Amino acid sequence: MRVANFVYIGVSLDGYIADRDGGLDWLDRVPVPEGEDLGWAGFYGRIDALLMGRVTFETVCGFDVDWPYDKPVFVLSGTMTTVPDAYRQRAEVVGGPLPEIVAALRGRGFGNLYIDGGATIRSFLRADLIDELILTRIPVLLGGGVPLFGELARPMALEHVDTRVHAGAIVQSHYRRGEQVSR
Amino acid sequence: MRVANFVYIGVSLDGYIADRDGGLDWLDRVPVPEGEDLGWAGFYGRIDALLMGRVTFETVCGFDVDWPYDKPVFVLSGTMTTVPDAYRQRAEVVGGPLPEIVAALRGRGFGNLYIDGGATIRSFLRADLIDELILTRIPVLLGGGVPLFGELARPMALEHVDTRVHAGAIVQSHYRRGEQVSR
Repeated sequence: MRVANFVYIGVSLDGYIADRDGGLDWLDRVPVPEGEDLGWAGFYGRIDALLMGRVTFETVCGFDVDWPYDKPVFVLSGTMTTVPDAYRQRAEVVGGPLPEIVAALRGRGFGNLYIDGGATIRSFLRADLIDELILTRIPVLLGGGVPLFGELARPMALEHVDTRVHAGAIVQSHYRRGEQVSR
Repeated sequence: MRVANFVYIGVSLDGYIADRDGGLDWLDRVPVPEGEDLGWAGFYGRIDALLMGRVTFETVCGFDVDWPYDKPVFVLSGTMTTVPDAYRQRAEVVGGPLPEIVAALRGRGFGNLYIDGGATIRSFLRADLIDELILTRIPVLLGGGVPLFGELARPMALEHVDTRVHAGAIVQSHYRRGEQVSR
């Protein structure tokens, strides 16, 4: 089975992944039934490792919960060379050209990668290195904040895989790159 | 039944309603079965008049088809005072503060208004004058172009009405303002 780089992210109808203050409270504005995980467990079960930007890593570190991942986390950073001591068992810093990072992780046996964080996702899209996107649309217009998408050199066609409506309000659509290029 | 201002528009996954050249070809990139109208007839049947920006009006005038509307069209413009002679029976220019325009049209018996065009939709959203949005998501990332959404002074909560997938690829979601304020 082909390995892939995935985006799985909550996004407002106007395309933001965090509000003007970096806040994420709006992601929880629709109450979801107990046990409803918006497909998270199924998605998380498919991935081998996470690759996230420094800002997202620091955001996760700042959450008032235990470390939420039991899979390897790679932190993309041009400035940070190592993670803080408390995270040494959990995360590792990577840098360099994105295709090389991906190739190196694949070489280490990490096939399916979960690409997370706005800047990182935008960089991966610009480099045409995203294979699947699972977009979870929260019914709100934020009117400003951190955008999910950025400029691309050329349009990127996608194939619709499926769409599910969760809690009668949250529209989750799964897309796949229209033209699979082996690399 | 309450009257409403509607948006019904095709939008790329990254939130554009026209590409960098103002082009709309991408709206048709997914072939739809003969007779499938993406809910257009049902929507159009509900509205009493159209209110569109000058740019959209001129775009429609430039389409290589007969005039597509058999309902009154109002053209919002700060620069144009009348429509060209050929369109006198079809369209009328309106201007002034948006709430007054809407009130005047309601006073003339036009209850449900179809608000069209990027700049016009953004202005109406900023003025909190949109009641329902029907967003038709085409599976493409354009990477640039004319954005549907713009800055808002505050977030706008929406209620999800329903979502339908057309042609196995086009995700159409219908939203309604979360808090209806009478005006």
